[in-house]
Amino acid sequence: MNRVINFNAGPAAIPLDVLKQAQEEMLDWNGTGMSVMEVSHRSKEYEAMHNEAQDLFRKLAGMGPEWKILFLTGGASTQFFMIPMNFLHSGRKATYLVTGNWSKGALKEAKRFGTCDAYTTENPDGTFTRILKPSEFSIDPNSTYVHMTSNNTLFGSQWHYWPETGSVPLVCDMSSDIFSRPFPADKFSLIYAGAQKNLGPSGVTVVAVKDSFLQLAEEQAKLPTMLSYRTHADNNSLYNTPPCFSIYILSLTLKWLDKNGGLEAMQKINEEKGRIIYSAIDASNGFYRGPVEKDSRSLMNVVFRLDTVEKEELFVKEAKARGIVGVKGHRSTGGIRFSMYNANLVDNVAKAAQFMEDFRKKYS
Amino acid sequence: MNRVINFNAGPAAIPLDVLKQAQEEMLDWNGTGMSVMEVSHRSKEYEAMHNEAQDLFRKLAGMGPEWKILFLTGGASTQFFMIPMNFLHSGRKATYLVTGNWSKGALKEAKRFGTCDAYTTENPDGTFTRILKPSEFSIDPNSTYVHMTSNNTLFGSQWHYWPETGSVPLVCDMSSDIFSRPFPADKFSLIYAGAQKNLGPSGVTVVAVKDSFLQLAEEQAKLPTMLSYRTHADNNSLYNTPPCFSIYILSLTLKWLDKNGGLEAMQKINEEKGRIIYSAIDASNGFYRGPVEKDSRSLMNVVFRLDTVEKEELFVKEAKARGIVGVKGHRSTGGIRFSMYNANLVDNVAKAAQFMEDFRKKYS
Repeated sequence: MNRVINFNAGPAAIPLDVLKQAQEEMLDWNGTGMSVMEVSHRSKEYEAMHNEAQDLFRKLAGMGPEWKILFLTGGASTQFFMIPMNFLHSGRKATYLVTGNWSKGALKEAKRFGTCDAYTTENPDGTFTRILKPSEFSIDPNSTYVHMTSNNTLFGSQWHYWPETGSVPLVCDMSSDIFSRPFPADKFSLIYAGAQKNLGPSGVTVVAVKDSFLQLAEEQAKLPTMLSYRTHADNNSLYNTPPCFSIYILSLTLKWLDKNGGLEAMQKINEEKGRIIYSAIDASNGFYRGPVEKDSRSLMNVVFRLDTVEKEELFVKEAKARGIVGVKGHRSTGGIRFSMYNANLVDNVAKAAQFMEDFRKKYS
Repeated sequence: MNRVINFNAGPAAIPLDVLKQAQEEMLDWNGTGMSVMEVSHRSKEYEAMHNEAQDLFRKLAGMGPEWKILFLTGGASTQFFMIPMNFLHSGRKATYLVTGNWSKGALKEAKRFGTCDAYTTENPDGTFTRILKPSEFSIDPNSTYVHMTSNNTLFGSQWHYWPETGSVPLVCDMSSDIFSRPFPADKFSLIYAGAQKNLGPSGVTVVAVKDSFLQLAEEQAKLPTMLSYRTHADNNSLYNTPPCFSIYILSLTLKWLDKNGGLEAMQKINEEKGRIIYSAIDASNGFYRGPVEKDSRSLMNVVFRLDTVEKEELFVKEAKARGIVGVKGHRSTGGIRFSMYNANLVDNVAKAAQFMEDFRKKYS
């Protein structure tokens, strides 16, 4: 077995201990004599795991029982329309804070359902190189919610403060940095995240929604049954068959997180990883150039350029020869991207920084 | 390792060879040095597997290149509304053939979008004990499509002929008997199936749609992006991150099916399994009573009753002691149910029949 250093942006690295446990239990999960994939979602064994994962999610997030934890499918892209479909009814309006490609996509879907105020940091060339400053937006108190995306995988930026929204509920797409650092759950009303970056594999999307906000949702009868949050909240995400295996890997990942110190420990580790890589960029005398403004830099997705596309291709190739994969930037942006989610250890990041240094010496 | 005989209705038994391969490759899939869960869905390794699964699906189903094979999420319940949302626009109508709980659910969602003719075999007490006879329905040629459910997991009935729909496209929910027998693909325009019965684990829904039918779908711009079949067809089900691991297990299950003789071989095996269990019922002198009319009996889900609920509970308990699990009927119907999908071998079914015989002798 020759495991690589995996900087994929998502699906991404999963803790080795999680994979080993899944491997060990593949033919006989929890003494059932079946794989977890073969167990009924109505069985007490499955439900115990499902409920335990919800409880652990609440514990790690510092959420009380007023939060419903839903396990849905369709990725964050499905939440882009489910949120306005459920909450932007009856002539209501919402406010969107647009700081990257994904929040722009969320706004596009919301406009189908109602009026949206939008504030953006999009540059004239379509790129995003920073998040919004507090002075650059104001929240209409008549907004039903404010939507933001805490971290931008494509452009490598991240919110390092939480916007003040007054009494307006805050909705956040945390797909790419959830549980990488503590956050004040009380400030939010709905948080969602595709699991395939910091929480496990693709195939499950976690939606945490506060009871008080759920009260504002459209009546269940007015929506297709599967598109109403109420359906899933009322049935503990077991209205129909959930994506059991993805939830199982999520549950193991949450246990791993908890065992390793929870969100505060992750924050320290992620800050250390960020320090290592951004130092390598900043100390390179322009050999590596990070386009994102310093106070908006992401600790999850580090994006940088070399001076030619050819050199970037060479970088990708030589990284691979060193066992470092997934470093090619998003197809729409080019460049280099290191995605360093929780499962990427400091040691791996240090090796990547060493490679950057060696590559620079060889080619500068 | 003590594997049980697994009669779960879904999620259900998966071929042991499939699980063993998944176990073996858990830490290093296909020489990538990563689990298949950690690989980018934009990588050539992932795309090759994804495309190969589509090709193998077409091959097994006898479908030509005019069929798009989509890998979606949200289960059959999501297809219940996506089909009318996409096809029942502009004042069109559809025809629903209702022979069980799931087709009834599909009709309920369709009525939100347009007019539906419906023909049903529902009994006054809400049960279904047979499918429709050809003389019991007629298809309005102005229907945009006819919807049917080929097998009813809850009540244990199955269509043993295909309805004549003339020029009206036939849409079929095959979730619980897909690939258990050959079927004339040409007769259909759209087929869908949650994978968790005959195709693998939960978390992925296969939708096969003919190009000519897709032409009738609502314009993409008029629907939330993720709810348009066109989005997924145009992007080879890679518009956003698909449920990679579920698709991987699906791909291994399709290979297992192909290696074991494809649909004709499965049909023979499933007929033999059905013969064994239905003989045990019919030879029991009324100790076991199958409510479904003989020509509507399902080869996938065998449903029967004992004379008291207490005896049924005892049956479930003693079956479990023999290593036979998942035999309790659906919570809405009670009774006993053996779900015998492709991964359940004749040998296991024979052991279950032996148990039925032993139990009958002990308690009759």
